[in-house]
Amino acid sequence: MRQLSWRMVASAVVGLTVALEAVPWLLGWLQVGRQRRPRRDVLFFPSQVTCTEALLQAPGEAPAGPTGDCPCNLPHSESSLSHLLRALLAARVSLELCLFAFSNPQLGRAVRLLHQRGVRVRIITDCDYMALNGSQIGLLRKAGIQVWHDQDLGYMHHKFAIVDKKVLITGSLNWTTQAIQNNRENVLIMEDSEYVRLFLEEFERIWEEFNPAKYSFFPQKKQIC
Amino acid sequence: MRQLSWRMVASAVVGLTVALEAVPWLLGWLQVGRQRRPRRDVLFFPSQVTCTEALLQAPGEAPAGPTGDCPCNLPHSESSLSHLLRALLAARVSLELCLFAFSNPQLGRAVRLLHQRGVRVRIITDCDYMALNGSQIGLLRKAGIQVWHDQDLGYMHHKFAIVDKKVLITGSLNWTTQAIQNNRENVLIMEDSEYVRLFLEEFERIWEEFNPAKYSFFPQKKQIC
Repeated sequence: MRQLSWRMVASAVVGLTVALEAVPWLLGWLQVGRQRRPRRDVLFFPSQVTCTEALLQAPGEAPAGPTGDCPCNLPHSESSLSHLLRALLAARVSLELCLFAFSNPQLGRAVRLLHQRGVRVRIITDCDYMALNGSQIGLLRKAGIQVWHDQDLGYMHHKFAIVDKKVLITGSLNWTTQAIQNNRENVLIMEDSEYVRLFLEEFERIWEEFNPAKYSFFPQKKQIC
Repeated sequence: MRQLSWRMVASAVVGLTVALEAVPWLLGWLQVGRQRRPRRDVLFFPSQVTCTEALLQAPGEAPAGPTGDCPCNLPHSESSLSHLLRALLAARVSLELCLFAFSNPQLGRAVRLLHQRGVRVRIITDCDYMALNGSQIGLLRKAGIQVWHDQDLGYMHHKFAIVDKKVLITGSLNWTTQAIQNNRENVLIMEDSEYVRLFLEEFERIWEEFNPAKYSFFPQKKQIC
């Protein structure tokens, strides 16, 4: 009888061990634990003014200085602007931009660089702001990038970007040098499928609505019949 | 021997069962599974214009209409604005507001209501916008709410709120009726300890910096010595 109870205890221990061995597998199945943590950053502005040349060189461009670094006097450290540029330049397939104001030259260069690399860039903007001096919209259009705009009384006041349909970049920041260097601003960078889906739906809704075929200030010619 | 092996199997089954019983507890301990899902909403604007009277009645106020409902002709349905008001009115302890522009009367009433209920409200705003016609800032100060502002060349352009140090409300929306009713805007409502911590740190940083004792346009009297 004594031998029997030892065997029962041993069997119970074996059963317990087998079940506990299954726990990591179960957690893996529930996608908990070891997977790469999705990106969740916040950038606050004003940004320190730093040199961003190294990030923005087009393929085949000669290095700016003799050592390959830009020889300018600005600090060559990271800043909120450089983090924002890096998040955008990570795009490989697509970039949706929905921006009230876009006049910062570095961000303009980054977007043109992505277009040159074959990333599909689509831009929605506000018709009032895009006509102002210093807007990047003309240069972006000249480069062959599609830009559609509102013709509403209200403003197209969003300030978001979607990178490769995986990362949402959104916040209070208009893409102007004034805002980047002087204002208190925030930008969230979120690798989050739920938020990306909702903002992408909003983008597609507006994209469809702002289709230039619907612009009323280019009135269709009346058919002669 | 046959009896023995049955007992071993039975013991192993008991061990397995005990271990599997422990899995939900283990998952609970790892905060996976049955817990309430943290709030993660996105509101898009323009908002439908709806009646928000039912949300904004102060304690002891008579119901607006004979049936207790507001008798106005506006729809009494939910809207992006009513969702935003509900998220704010959920505050029980504290409300931090960091807002470029604040002129919407309904949002102003909601904040004053929270102050009346004993919620600790602190507001940071932009000195240029607060002086404009229609700003709620004067009414909020008159009600006894602390409002501190910048005196920078740049704008205090944030548009975020923190409810009970648990929920972050942030986006592109300035708290103006024009923006709510006419603009394309977004507001994220996130019950997220990491984002709340980062935005609360930004709030406290600015709050300290904008301390009225440091305002330079009230110059300290020179000491006679």
